[in-house]
Amino acid sequence: MITFQDIDRAYHVVMPVVHRTPLLTSRTLNARTGNEVLLKAENLQRIGAFKIRGAYHKIFSLSPEERSRGVVAHSSGNHAQGVALASKLLGVKATVVMPKNSPSIKVEATRGYGAEVMFCEDSSDAREHLAGELRERYGYIPVPPYDDDMIIAGQGTVTVEIAQGVEKLDYLFVPIGGGGLIGGNAVAAKHLFPGVKVIGVETVAANDCYQTFRRKEIVRIDPPDTIADGMRTQSVGKRNFELIMNYVDDVVTVTDDQVIETMKFLLQRMKVVAEPTGAVAPAAVLHNVLGLSGKRVCAIVSGGNVDPMLLRKILERTTP
Amino acid sequence: MITFQDIDRAYHVVMPVVHRTPLLTSRTLNARTGNEVLLKAENLQRIGAFKIRGAYHKIFSLSPEERSRGVVAHSSGNHAQGVALASKLLGVKATVVMPKNSPSIKVEATRGYGAEVMFCEDSSDAREHLAGELRERYGYIPVPPYDDDMIIAGQGTVTVEIAQGVEKLDYLFVPIGGGGLIGGNAVAAKHLFPGVKVIGVETVAANDCYQTFRRKEIVRIDPPDTIADGMRTQSVGKRNFELIMNYVDDVVTVTDDQVIETMKFLLQRMKVVAEPTGAVAPAAVLHNVLGLSGKRVCAIVSGGNVDPMLLRKILERTTP
Repeated sequence: MITFQDIDRAYHVVMPVVHRTPLLTSRTLNARTGNEVLLKAENLQRIGAFKIRGAYHKIFSLSPEERSRGVVAHSSGNHAQGVALASKLLGVKATVVMPKNSPSIKVEATRGYGAEVMFCEDSSDAREHLAGELRERYGYIPVPPYDDDMIIAGQGTVTVEIAQGVEKLDYLFVPIGGGGLIGGNAVAAKHLFPGVKVIGVETVAANDCYQTFRRKEIVRIDPPDTIADGMRTQSVGKRNFELIMNYVDDVVTVTDDQVIETMKFLLQRMKVVAEPTGAVAPAAVLHNVLGLSGKRVCAIVSGGNVDPMLLRKILERTTP
Repeated sequence: MITFQDIDRAYHVVMPVVHRTPLLTSRTLNARTGNEVLLKAENLQRIGAFKIRGAYHKIFSLSPEERSRGVVAHSSGNHAQGVALASKLLGVKATVVMPKNSPSIKVEATRGYGAEVMFCEDSSDAREHLAGELRERYGYIPVPPYDDDMIIAGQGTVTVEIAQGVEKLDYLFVPIGGGGLIGGNAVAAKHLFPGVKVIGVETVAANDCYQTFRRKEIVRIDPPDTIADGMRTQSVGKRNFELIMNYVDDVVTVTDDQVIETMKFLLQRMKVVAEPTGAVAPAAVLHNVLGLSGKRVCAIVSGGNVDPMLLRKILERTTP
């Protein structure tokens, strides 16, 4: 398992290239929840999500020989752009396997950073198969999305920045997909904020880690139908599981409707765009699922890359 | 005319109650414009716009006797909410005159801060008439939107914060409505950033100050038809005019289409919501109307209070 020293080292690696994203506050949000709420705005990060942190740290840490071979990743989402941009910054050739039905906007963004995009059928198996084939045929180094110590340490740098803006913290809410973000940030939070409780958040449909946490073994679910596309992973990774069982205090869920209401709140009241997965941790805070009162609470807004069509639909909904 | 000392004093007054809003950056924006661009995100300010700064400073500076009489303002926009919130924070009774066709969302926000709302016909004359009547009948103290030294000094605190985040600046772009924001910030910028050029920005239809600046006398235009509703003032104020002629280097214009494209860029690439007036100064930078290259440029995003319907329409537009 990684330690805080790994995250601290990662911070010095990624610091020169990532944005130090702001901690947003809103008295309306405080008044509505009865807590002092901080939102760590990784939606304002480069590539629009925290994923650049882990990807850059991972690729930076490769040997010169490995770097010269190039990297391969598979992703339909923010990891693709993270790997593409990190590779570009480090002068490494990147190949990204994406499902052939990926939104063209994401394909273009990935290509825009100079990565080569290869298409496959839309299933985890097909993606992994093609990525594996490329690895074998060309010797590319894989950049996994979450089950990797370098990736996890990179994502954990979010909390290093949180600690630069605030001295004490009672609760940290983090969304869980494959567990890369929460793994690193749970380790960092327990080191930097003595007594803090780290809470993982999923949507109800994508509650594999909610079950995992309670059964104390990795639970794999069918591909979940949830608006939070970053949570469509079917289980957390092995390294992520270990960190979660050791450092996370609880895992809670929110409904897709609560996520949508939170996206709308963030857009209209706080003037920032969150993607559905990015609104999951704030949703747990806005709807105060733990019934907290008088606490200083931080939630990570993990990303802001939302399809314009979806954003329009959300604006059309009347507030519940 | 006010001096930097007035703004510095105002900063110590408003600092405890305003957000220190972030300076947003985007490598895409830098690459696209060939400059190093910073956006001062006053759309993330309390009430969603910079107006709280001037209003709080003004009402704070009233004598106890004046405060006990209460204040009156007229506004259909962000000034209403600024006066309402500032009054609430200072325990002062506020009455805001609004046109009877004001969006209910703005009326509710103003009432939500505890201000009494009085409706009038939709014309500057009707607003001023009713506000004047209330002043005479009840002894309320007026809080003008821009032509007031306390208001101007309060708005100037934006640049004090910019200087906390960056040491050197070549250009500062500021939107011009009545001239409160640019008046204060031109004074502050010339003091804090030696050699900086301060550029005012209007939309083409609302170019009264563009004309004023060139004719060296206050030009009053018919109520302009522009998407930037904060620029529907027909002329700058007298105090604002003097500051502009003394401290501003140029006034430029952008089209409504450029404003809309900039709102879309801010939303989709930088993940923040700007209202049309808030996107006017960034539009001049994004479209590089001055043809700058290799400069460090800051633009003030003055506000983010945009009607959800308008936001939807903007998302429906295909990018030019």
